[in-house]
Amino acid sequence: MQLSDQQVKQFETEGYIFFPNVFSQQEIGRLNDELPAIFAQRREENIREKDSDAVRTAFAVHTYNESFGLLARHPRLVRPVMQLLNGPVYMHQFKINAKAAFNGDVWQWHQDFGTWTRDDLMPEPRAMNISVFLDEVNEFNGPLLLIPKSHQHGNLEAGHDVTSTSYPLWTLDHEAVTRLVEQGGLVAPKGPAGSMLLFHCNLVHASPGNISPWSRNIIYLSLCHVENHIRRHQRPEWIAHRDFTAIEPLADDSLSDVRERFENH
Amino acid sequence: MQLSDQQVKQFETEGYIFFPNVFSQQEIGRLNDELPAIFAQRREENIREKDSDAVRTAFAVHTYNESFGLLARHPRLVRPVMQLLNGPVYMHQFKINAKAAFNGDVWQWHQDFGTWTRDDLMPEPRAMNISVFLDEVNEFNGPLLLIPKSHQHGNLEAGHDVTSTSYPLWTLDHEAVTRLVEQGGLVAPKGPAGSMLLFHCNLVHASPGNISPWSRNIIYLSLCHVENHIRRHQRPEWIAHRDFTAIEPLADDSLSDVRERFENH
Repeated sequence: MQLSDQQVKQFETEGYIFFPNVFSQQEIGRLNDELPAIFAQRREENIREKDSDAVRTAFAVHTYNESFGLLARHPRLVRPVMQLLNGPVYMHQFKINAKAAFNGDVWQWHQDFGTWTRDDLMPEPRAMNISVFLDEVNEFNGPLLLIPKSHQHGNLEAGHDVTSTSYPLWTLDHEAVTRLVEQGGLVAPKGPAGSMLLFHCNLVHASPGNISPWSRNIIYLSLCHVENHIRRHQRPEWIAHRDFTAIEPLADDSLSDVRERFENH
Repeated sequence: MQLSDQQVKQFETEGYIFFPNVFSQQEIGRLNDELPAIFAQRREENIREKDSDAVRTAFAVHTYNESFGLLARHPRLVRPVMQLLNGPVYMHQFKINAKAAFNGDVWQWHQDFGTWTRDDLMPEPRAMNISVFLDEVNEFNGPLLLIPKSHQHGNLEAGHDVTSTSYPLWTLDHEAVTRLVEQGGLVAPKGPAGSMLLFHCNLVHASPGNISPWSRNIIYLSLCHVENHIRRHQRPEWIAHRDFTAIEPLADDSLSDVRERFENH
């Protein structure tokens, strides 16, 4: 999982890289099998939607679930970010964003670094998200919308929106979004379960609500260069982790089960 | 504007026909020029969104605006419906559904005939919508989602939802929508301003909110066979019209201005 020069260039210019079909259906199946039990748990890490009991975000699942724990150290996720950030990384945040069928609410227009630096005092934008689709993401079930090139503007002015949804977020105003879209357009990476999306922590993004009958679960690893760790511990530990240990990536077959490994070797 | 056998067959089987680029940019421009003044009016026909001052629906614009009055009798809209309904039609409802940039709210899953028969006692599903895109409709700005073939199930059970949005609607439950989508899938007709979409009044449809910086205005003519006129006048006249006179379609160039007509002849 070494990024090509062209992929690095795409990241620098556009602010994101999309990789269809990185994880097998077996690997994704292993993770999906765990979801009902995870979402059923009444724990503070599970944030539910404003207007329904559906889980909106399940934070820190890697800390209590073995399969997601393996994913959190998976080389296909960790190595590309280590390459782009040019050094060791730690896990700043880990979550499943579950845009439930019929009930998944919007994520407003925002930059992730906007929250990380304002709330957690992360010094520099030397961190980023890398995500894995647990479901097919299509035009109907609330895909992530990205504004290409918007990361080039640095950390933009934002307001703290604590009312629109069940989760507080530093969001951009409509004038700024309109201007950025005029410059960079909009893209919505779509693909089968197992696809992977990596994007710059200053890339402006949002996602619409999901009125379709198809769920849209996406896992996000927010990886940060170890030297760039957060300086303030204001948010709960399960939202902004305080363990700054460098992640040691596992073997590439770490999510495969024993029988699969046997068959593969 | 005579539908081909293939188009009639598509309507019967799938429940809709999409026609890209029917109206010219000049014709659409004439209509769009009127919108700011129409939306600015504080009149009961203009329904605003639940969470903003943006217009959600502007009803009966054809009754007080000349350009929209011409559109309401335009042969490219009226004749295909006369053909499919096999006779003269009257205007049951006329509206601009304005899904405003950033603010346009969802329309829940519903059938139009479900409302027309329950609220207005329209006897049979011998009526339908034909719509004109005033803006480009794309994957980002809240396109209409249709469930192909769902019209074949007739008038389905529905509940009266008076809280989700600013406009009351007879809506389908999630189980029914899931089942229908399993059978027919989902489509979102997209195309430039001036495109036209016609669909059966029992076709199940919805549209997501619009979080993009692009407005998405669509005009809907709900045309009904004159013999099938509504029997109850419970809703305001500007929502469910009581003039059952057959529409006489105008000439094809009726929306062109005088200079255009001079140039064309």
